[in-house]
Amino acid sequence: MATASDLPVSPLAPERFPSLPKVAGMEAATHSLGLYKGKVRDDLLVVHFPDGAAAGGIFTMSSTRSDDVDRCRAALNAGGGRARVLVVNTGNSNAFTGAAGVAKNAATIASARKQSGCGEHEVFISATGVIGEPLPPHIVSGGVEQVWGRLGAPDFEKIANCIRTTDTFAKAAGETVSLNRRNVSIVGVAKGSGMIQPNMATTLNYVFTDANLGPAVCQALIARLGDLTYNCITVDSDTSTSDTLLFFATGAAGGEPVDNPDDPRLSDFIAAMHRVLLELATQIVRDGEGATKIIEITVEGAASDASAKVIACSIANSPLVKTAIAAGDANWGRVVMAVGKTAEPVERDRLSLWFGDHQVAHEGARAADYSEAKATKAVSGDQVFIRVDVGIGRGKATVWTCDLTDGYVKINGAYRS
Amino acid sequence: MATASDLPVSPLAPERFPSLPKVAGMEAATHSLGLYKGKVRDDLLVVHFPDGAAAGGIFTMSSTRSDDVDRCRAALNAGGGRARVLVVNTGNSNAFTGAAGVAKNAATIASARKQSGCGEHEVFISATGVIGEPLPPHIVSGGVEQVWGRLGAPDFEKIANCIRTTDTFAKAAGETVSLNRRNVSIVGVAKGSGMIQPNMATTLNYVFTDANLGPAVCQALIARLGDLTYNCITVDSDTSTSDTLLFFATGAAGGEPVDNPDDPRLSDFIAAMHRVLLELATQIVRDGEGATKIIEITVEGAASDASAKVIACSIANSPLVKTAIAAGDANWGRVVMAVGKTAEPVERDRLSLWFGDHQVAHEGARAADYSEAKATKAVSGDQVFIRVDVGIGRGKATVWTCDLTDGYVKINGAYRS
Repeated sequence: MATASDLPVSPLAPERFPSLPKVAGMEAATHSLGLYKGKVRDDLLVVHFPDGAAAGGIFTMSSTRSDDVDRCRAALNAGGGRARVLVVNTGNSNAFTGAAGVAKNAATIASARKQSGCGEHEVFISATGVIGEPLPPHIVSGGVEQVWGRLGAPDFEKIANCIRTTDTFAKAAGETVSLNRRNVSIVGVAKGSGMIQPNMATTLNYVFTDANLGPAVCQALIARLGDLTYNCITVDSDTSTSDTLLFFATGAAGGEPVDNPDDPRLSDFIAAMHRVLLELATQIVRDGEGATKIIEITVEGAASDASAKVIACSIANSPLVKTAIAAGDANWGRVVMAVGKTAEPVERDRLSLWFGDHQVAHEGARAADYSEAKATKAVSGDQVFIRVDVGIGRGKATVWTCDLTDGYVKINGAYRS
Repeated sequence: MATASDLPVSPLAPERFPSLPKVAGMEAATHSLGLYKGKVRDDLLVVHFPDGAAAGGIFTMSSTRSDDVDRCRAALNAGGGRARVLVVNTGNSNAFTGAAGVAKNAATIASARKQSGCGEHEVFISATGVIGEPLPPHIVSGGVEQVWGRLGAPDFEKIANCIRTTDTFAKAAGETVSLNRRNVSIVGVAKGSGMIQPNMATTLNYVFTDANLGPAVCQALIARLGDLTYNCITVDSDTSTSDTLLFFATGAAGGEPVDNPDDPRLSDFIAAMHRVLLELATQIVRDGEGATKIIEITVEGAASDASAKVIACSIANSPLVKTAIAAGDANWGRVVMAVGKTAEPVERDRLSLWFGDHQVAHEGARAADYSEAKATKAVSGDQVFIRVDVGIGRGKATVWTCDLTDGYVKINGAYRS
């Protein structure tokens, strides 16, 4: 199985791992279960909230999702959004493993409860890696026991590295922001570089804050901001069976608890959390398998925001658009094709299109002052902006994707064997 | 602009161009308008039905389709399904060309009417090639005038070559069948190798018969059989702005006319026409850009046939499934992923999956007698069969696609520039 270290770092990667604030009220440890044969790397993450945390989450919509995803959703529903332990393994997704997968998760939860003394619905579990290969049930649960004595202040770089699979760089983002006149931290880690499509895009993502938020706030913020970020990215239109985005608030920064997601005191916090999620989501696009360019696509003039998003995703997922941009070819006719292939309302003869700042099409035909040189320049760098007005209404959406290169084909032809 | 001759012939191409029967009641000529700069090749096809023909057709559903498509549809609706002239050019699709495209088509139709003396709605026009580049209006119409004196018995190999763009081989199929105790011929030509997705899959396709069929029969048969063939193939999920499948019946074989599509005398004819369309449609898949394998995907046990087709197309369009098969990797977990990503009803824990004859998954988990060697063998040849039972009902569908290789990326990064 290919792992991160086999692949050259994406040319779109940030220059360095970010400097991150501390998040009070959580401890963590990483460990190697040996799930990557012939490689020494951490593949188990355990996070412990000694005084508990409020939790919220959103998950893959796949109908063949893993039992791990079902258990996280059930924990949130049945446990009222309280968390004590998070256990994540890489190297095996535990998806489509039937009874063996259920047994593995039961053992893992039992082990976490034994160590922490918490309730069944305070344990959250995730797994990522190959689909359909059952693991012996006690490998992960045994790891939880082994690692428990080593829990300590979280090293987010280690954590981000531990959850990588084909990622070519470790992904994290963080901010400090004022809430109730106290400084609070928000830190997120993410992994994902293929099988990326809303809903919800990417595989595993964990965002931690020491702000004192109630479970209803956690759930509302992660759903609302996840929809504007993770659900607006796509690499290849494929939806993982394990996609998980969890948000934990330890409350260790103290202060009055915030229990209403519409509380106006949250506005700075929400803006900061939005930036953290967008940074994580676009890092995933920057690590799209084989990517050499990040593409921001805005559709406006649509019947509704939802309609705009369908059209934007159609452009973002078109192999013909993505291969043209990979080659630096300003083949804007393919964007017109991708707009046309959805069932959404579009007025062909009022459709206008921009590559970067250059208008390439105006109301149903090539723009009068179209310049091949300017259009080509707009798709030649490693950041490409496409804007389409479909001439119907006021709906608008922005999505992010990457180009499609032979690197994608090579990585995905080699992943499993 | 890349053309057929730049590309190596697909390894999945038939060994030779088929031997085809004659179709009475039609004449044709091909010609070079010089639309492929620096290349000598035919890029204009004119077909003339001296005594007229009954016609039917199905077209792209794209909302950014070309004016050519709109005119064919309008001709069928307003003209009652009668045809005298077909004009096709390659090298420029005339899509998204606004007023210039409308002017080009008006001039072409006027020229065809002048030569043939027919009505406005008896002229059918198609164009394929780059999108959004206006052509001077008189290039194609002038070509019609030039070529008219050279019309003669159709050379289907020349015709099939004339309509190629990135196709690596000329596509045609034909049969002779008995109808009303007379031998009649069916011959079809097709072009297409990318931007292939229902509805309707591929770009340009023309099927001719000398059977004596009325317009209602032509329309009913092409719609019914097109749905079972062209609308069941996909190369890259992209839908062309020019997709056209036209069916012309000259009636020159004589005999009593058939005006009812449910006439039992049609059964052998329908079976033969189905074989011709399926052969053409799968030839398009065999010429999928960069294809090295043809993949037949059958989904059964779905809530309905329509639901089965959505799931089958999700598998067929998954870049992760297609790249794994390209590499000969039996990564069946990706098929499970692609089944799960649609919104169609699926019973995860009753889902079973076969690669060729080998059952790889049984009721929600890897099959007990799964063999990596057998599964790998099933995806190693140039024909791959995938079958999924989704455990819900009796709905069933089969679709055809090809693998995704770096050849696709190379061809589509080079097409336009």
